[in-house]
Amino acid sequence: MKTIYVDNNATTRVDAEVLEEMLPYFRENYGNPSSMHTFGGNVAAKISRARERVAALINAEPEEIVFTSCGTESDSTSIWATIEAFPEKKHIITSRVEHPAIKNLFEHLSKKGYQVSFVPVDKKGNLNLDYLYEHLTKETAIVSIMWANNETGVTYPVDEIAAAVREKGVVFHTDAVQAMGKLEVDVKNTAVDLLSLSGHKIHAPKGVGALYLKKGTKFSPFLIGGHQEHGRRGGTENVAAIVGLGKAAELAKKRLEASALKTAALRDKLEKNLLERIPNSMINGDTEHRLPNTTNISYEYVEGEAILLMMNEFGICASSGSACTSGSLEPSHVLRAMGVPFTAAHGSIRYSLSDDNTEEEIDFIIEHTPPIIKRLRDLSPFWSQRKAS
Amino acid sequence: MKTIYVDNNATTRVDAEVLEEMLPYFRENYGNPSSMHTFGGNVAAKISRARERVAALINAEPEEIVFTSCGTESDSTSIWATIEAFPEKKHIITSRVEHPAIKNLFEHLSKKGYQVSFVPVDKKGNLNLDYLYEHLTKETAIVSIMWANNETGVTYPVDEIAAAVREKGVVFHTDAVQAMGKLEVDVKNTAVDLLSLSGHKIHAPKGVGALYLKKGTKFSPFLIGGHQEHGRRGGTENVAAIVGLGKAAELAKKRLEASALKTAALRDKLEKNLLERIPNSMINGDTEHRLPNTTNISYEYVEGEAILLMMNEFGICASSGSACTSGSLEPSHVLRAMGVPFTAAHGSIRYSLSDDNTEEEIDFIIEHTPPIIKRLRDLSPFWSQRKAS
Repeated sequence: MKTIYVDNNATTRVDAEVLEEMLPYFRENYGNPSSMHTFGGNVAAKISRARERVAALINAEPEEIVFTSCGTESDSTSIWATIEAFPEKKHIITSRVEHPAIKNLFEHLSKKGYQVSFVPVDKKGNLNLDYLYEHLTKETAIVSIMWANNETGVTYPVDEIAAAVREKGVVFHTDAVQAMGKLEVDVKNTAVDLLSLSGHKIHAPKGVGALYLKKGTKFSPFLIGGHQEHGRRGGTENVAAIVGLGKAAELAKKRLEASALKTAALRDKLEKNLLERIPNSMINGDTEHRLPNTTNISYEYVEGEAILLMMNEFGICASSGSACTSGSLEPSHVLRAMGVPFTAAHGSIRYSLSDDNTEEEIDFIIEHTPPIIKRLRDLSPFWSQRKAS
Repeated sequence: MKTIYVDNNATTRVDAEVLEEMLPYFRENYGNPSSMHTFGGNVAAKISRARERVAALINAEPEEIVFTSCGTESDSTSIWATIEAFPEKKHIITSRVEHPAIKNLFEHLSKKGYQVSFVPVDKKGNLNLDYLYEHLTKETAIVSIMWANNETGVTYPVDEIAAAVREKGVVFHTDAVQAMGKLEVDVKNTAVDLLSLSGHKIHAPKGVGALYLKKGTKFSPFLIGGHQEHGRRGGTENVAAIVGLGKAAELAKKRLEASALKTAALRDKLEKNLLERIPNSMINGDTEHRLPNTTNISYEYVEGEAILLMMNEFGICASSGSACTSGSLEPSHVLRAMGVPFTAAHGSIRYSLSDDNTEEEIDFIIEHTPPIIKRLRDLSPFWSQRKAS
């Protein structure tokens, strides 16, 4: 059975060109970049090249890029490094719709004596900026607001927020993991101090990420050890994956516009057809400010997990907005923050596309989804009660 | 020019079987192991298999293995997690000869209010155990002692130390990065609570490591985020590298004895011949308690970096005991802790072998090293002065 993969916000396929560039670094050029011999030095030169490419993707300087092991490490490093740099400041700000890498860390910090302001969102998932600005003071250590939401695709006015935060002399971090390769991100045009990105969301392998660290930002390393990454991240470099991330960044920059057009067209077709063909279905999140590749659709009165299992029978891979994998039956914290009614939040499906997707795949999903929802609703007491009412 | 690589304590070549097993996880089975669909679930199953293989290498239970991004992360996680678990204990113990991942972290903690006891070593690099036991009290939060030294190969009586530490009810961590695949490591026979290992020292790729976390050990995660690794390490799994580490662990276990015999025979031949042919040369470290693959030889009155550069001309890749790569001209902290005289410590070369090395390679090094040392000494004023004296 063919796999139809529309779960690209979870992870992407490694690009063939990326893998090709990585391969020599496993068994041929396997030296340690810190070594004194040419065999290691050649590897160090290739890492420099990757650093330049990642910097170019976001218009940073190469020395502002620190390679990490993943988006979560970039996020964690940003927050810990900043609160350690400003130990007297005990107030931090984030939103209610962040990725668990930020959400769970901020909740942890709230138990450690930090006062945390969680910025609420409205029904469309847009931030309450008044709340943010009211709570922002010179006593705030850091503000962390994601560039784009992983579940709904809703994008945030990071430019505006970053400028306001900088004006107060406060450090601003953004988790740009989902924005990367989908939107233009220019750190010279945005007052961000710290920015997280992840390789495996842009067709590089899993296990590598990067942190943009604006020159002059106070920083205390998370991994103390060797002198790697200019003393900003100890540990032998993940050479092949860093090389892969460099290539993926180059490709993402080159393909940005075409990829956005292609995925948006496919996404819009998918969305329009599913909404038309399936009653009691709706989009979650603002469709005006949204990533081009993502749609999050709720099918009322059915369970997201049941839908996914039935989609899986057809080889269709997507994800539920709910935190299914953690074993919890609670719907997603993002949809709850948006006030999506329980009956709709439970039956939400995120479709996230990439360049790899084809029109045939979209047609296949459009064809097979309505009968799945119908079949599940026919089994649902909530659905029949609703119809009866 | 052929590369003769005797720098395997720095990093190793990825084994062909390891790479073969990794390859399908870049472009074929690229799903996210946390996903609800079979496409992701298959990947999760493969990670479980890797976990079993890594556990088998050290005789642990699979659920006691946490995958990390490198040895440095395993080390850092162990120390931070333990001091966070015992916030009232402000005393910690390590040795003077640890890897920078531990040494620099402990020095950082000493500036943060921790009282650190650094256990000294004797001329042969053996630990002063009396010092360790005198300083070990119930107020000690953690003792971290490496299993084997990366620079000299000297091994430590971890069994004995771990038992004494456990008797006091104190947590024991060991950095076993260099021991792995070279010595038998059995966590059921040794009272270790936390143990670090790294993939790229055992022919797995760079960018992956593991932490053994004995069941019941108090633990607070370093990377807070998703539910991965049973909530002990957030972040999407580095799937291909974890698969590679699993295979490498299986191979390391299978080859342990033969590999030790082979590398020790080659190492002994190399060592004997170099010492015989080069005057004023000596081994650093106890030769009775040493890894089978490592020798650290000092050539008096010459600079390690100069030797490495000339070896490099012949394609021979080794490393200096000195912290050359950090730009410091100070000799290695390990050799200084051993009291190796300045004139010898500066000219130290570490040769670290692996299964990949051949007798021809060793003969080549034996042939080309004496003229290199002679040429450098002919240029050295210290050497001529010495001869004159």
